[in-house]
Amino acid sequence: MSQPIIPRVGIATDVHAFDTDPDRPLMLACLHWPGEIGLVGHSDADVAAHVACDALFSAAGIGDLGTHFGTGRPEYDGASGTRLLEESVRLVTDAGYEIGNIAIQIIGQKPKFTPRAAEACRVMSDIVGAPVAVSATTTDHLGFTGRNEGLAAVATALVYPR
Amino acid sequence: MSQPIIPRVGIATDVHAFDTDPDRPLMLACLHWPGEIGLVGHSDADVAAHVACDALFSAAGIGDLGTHFGTGRPEYDGASGTRLLEESVRLVTDAGYEIGNIAIQIIGQKPKFTPRAAEACRVMSDIVGAPVAVSATTTDHLGFTGRNEGLAAVATALVYPR
Amino acid sequence: MSQPIIPRVGIATDVHAFDTDPDRPLMLACLHWPGEIGLVGHSDADVAAHVACDALFSAAGIGDLGTHFGTGRPEYDGASGTRLLEESVRLVTDAGYEIGNIAIQIIGQKPKFTPRAAEACRVMSDIVGAPVAVSATTTDHLGFTGRNEGLAAVATALVYPR
Repeated sequence: MSQPIIPRVGIATDVHAFDTDPDRPLMLACLHWPGEIGLVGHSDADVAAHVACDALFSAAGIGDLGTHFGTGRPEYDGASGTRLLEESVRLVTDAGYEIGNIAIQIIGQKPKFTPRAAEACRVMSDIVGAPVAVSATTTDHLGFTGRNEGLAAVATALVYPR
Repeated sequence: MSQPIIPRVGIATDVHAFDTDPDRPLMLACLHWPGEIGLVGHSDADVAAHVACDALFSAAGIGDLGTHFGTGRPEYDGASGTRLLEESVRLVTDAGYEIGNIAIQIIGQKPKFTPRAAEACRVMSDIVGAPVAVSATTTDHLGFTGRNEGLAAVATALVYPR
Repeated sequence: MSQPIIPRVGIATDVHAFDTDPDRPLMLACLHWPGEIGLVGHSDADVAAHVACDALFSAAGIGDLGTHFGTGRPEYDGASGTRLLEESVRLVTDAGYEIGNIAIQIIGQKPKFTPRAAEACRVMSDIVGAPVAVSATTTDHLGFTGRNEGLAAVATALVYPR
């Protein structure tokens, strides 16, 4: 008799402030966005990649970005969102889970995301080895994202015990 | 041997500002709220209906409100939340998915949602053809929703490949 | 032929302001945090416990904290987050659902959560009788959580009809 496959769901949010340095590159959803102002962070501050990592950790119940890549782990200082996401996939897989899918929403007034949405989904799905959907919305000029102080992101993920 | 049914999860947030026009009607969760001030938007600005659409698109991995109903699609200018949700259900179904359920939370100090929560769940579940749960919370008077500048909503959805 | 087990997903957010009384104890994730300033609320204002309750209600489609523990239910005045979570588990179980898992993220600049994350997961999982993952993040000093005005939390849950 086959056992039913019972998934686990996870959730995460993340926020990074826009840099005051106009030459800081913007990395978002594992893509470079030429001409856009970057986000502040020890790493490349890719808020969409970070929230994907944290949603995976949350679903698998194995801590969060701070646990795995925090100040006690200097080897991850300055690591790209792509590298952190690759490493997160490895950690979740090593913990005995298969990744079902990840869904991410970027929240902010800019950059204009729709023209590169398909590219972002493709690149992040390739990294994860499972479907990653990336969408975007604004907050109607309300709150800190509405005032262009930073970008936020939310994500959820399903994982399955192997 | 039967194949296991593997769902996909999605997530979305949305925000609309309250209108400065006190006669603007409030449409929320596919209901009209007499005596309440409405939200600003090209459409009826039904933040709960919009977030349900985006959670479905996110789960199915087929873009977002901007992709399907944005400025390039003038036929949706002024479309009600109910119409956008009906159309979203059709798009997700056409993409090969069955809808498991949608869960929505409205975030704001007003209107008082509990007295009409059951009605909202019934109306939205009828539109979607699957269980839609609508709940509400406040932010303890903090942030833009706490200052009554607007309403926010979050949603998640499960869909299944047919 | 066995029926496939179709889960339902839920979502919730919650916010509580920090108290101006420096002697108010902080209860968070069903733990007491000595030396930290507490949150304002009729109850112990445990934002992580509350959001777990609401995520369960959302997944099961049976209302929210206001429905079950609101002003019409004085017997819950001052009830601890632990008691509300125990009662929520009972309500969701009585409604015919088994709990798959709950995932919670606490959003704020303090307290430093990582050192007690494993303890919080263990205590909350024992209360719920299913895996509860508790993680934490900051908002990079942006917004009301970034200014230490309060703590926010988000959660998702999976439940299964029995």
